[in-house]
Amino acid sequence: MIRITELAQEQISRVVRQGALVVDATAGNGRDTLFLARLVGPGGRVFAFDIQEGALQKTASLLEENRLAERVTLLHAGHETMSAHIEAPVSAVMFNLGYLPGGDRAIVTRPESTRLALAASLELLRPGGLITVVLYPGHPQGQEEREIIVDYCRSLDSKVCRVVQVALLNCSGVPPELLVLKKFKEFAQKELS
Amino acid sequence: MIRITELAQEQISRVVRQGALVVDATAGNGRDTLFLARLVGPGGRVFAFDIQEGALQKTASLLEENRLAERVTLLHAGHETMSAHIEAPVSAVMFNLGYLPGGDRAIVTRPESTRLALAASLELLRPGGLITVVLYPGHPQGQEEREIIVDYCRSLDSKVCRVVQVALLNCSGVPPELLVLKKFKEFAQKELS
Repeated sequence: MIRITELAQEQISRVVRQGALVVDATAGNGRDTLFLARLVGPGGRVFAFDIQEGALQKTASLLEENRLAERVTLLHAGHETMSAHIEAPVSAVMFNLGYLPGGDRAIVTRPESTRLALAASLELLRPGGLITVVLYPGHPQGQEEREIIVDYCRSLDSKVCRVVQVALLNCSGVPPELLVLKKFKEFAQKELS
Repeated sequence: MIRITELAQEQISRVVRQGALVVDATAGNGRDTLFLARLVGPGGRVFAFDIQEGALQKTASLLEENRLAERVTLLHAGHETMSAHIEAPVSAVMFNLGYLPGGDRAIVTRPESTRLALAASLELLRPGGLITVVLYPGHPQGQEEREIIVDYCRSLDSKVCRVVQVALLNCSGVPPELLVLKKFKEFAQKELS
């Protein structure tokens, strides 16, 4: 079975180069953080956010097991505050919404803070950079979150970025979805304006 | 502006190698046929179908202008008959549905023959191969065709292929959509069954 999270990683690996600065907006169990830490190489840096201490501990353990902890800055903060922690332009930002697998299912990402975090990510993103967002419309608050985030993406200026919505069609239940936001290069913006 | 047809070509160019056998199921104005003829190189072959003589003439002219006519077999036949014309496994099949740009808008692809052509394509496809389908739900018959094709794709065995639905979110009107069907490699099928 193909997972939508793998499709997200596939997209990210096409744009992130060694030495890049990137963000995991939802560290969770640390899988995307680990993926990003490998991708950026020894000269790169990953900023990983989570509001749950347990998630950051899991992520820290996973990174230590893989001897990659030094490439990652773990931040116990909401991802909507990312502009306060990061100054330089970043190459990629990954969001994996919903609840922490194996954690308290009452603690989920909130649509409003996700929307703010997405706006902050677009600001921080370098031209040519990518944002991936994995959405889970199958869980109770997930449907509402999906609608708010999709509406927000529809409203984005098509001269600044393109938003591609990706869904797996032939799987059971309500499948997760992936949004891929690509910020255009400046020359492209000029050409189009 | 990014076009959905470019996203389709992007996907195809990742799997088709020099010397490959590929199909343009809807030659139309010949753009995808030309793209495929370049991609397969001197040792490859493109089978291009269209039910409209005018479409095949346009395609032939475009190929001749680009000196690539010898790599292409033009077939004045419905794409649902492709199994009668092609025996060997193919690496890719491209569909661009709807009407011929600049042609008679009353002549459109029909949902039922498209569904049959899609089934035939899946049979002909080699493991690891790709089918792309560009859908236009914005034109009158396009919405019905989209529903029939999407329903058909939902019904496909997820052990045999994965179907990814791709849409551009931030553009005006009813945007075209892209379906990407990937046939799994045999070892993957065995692992999963």
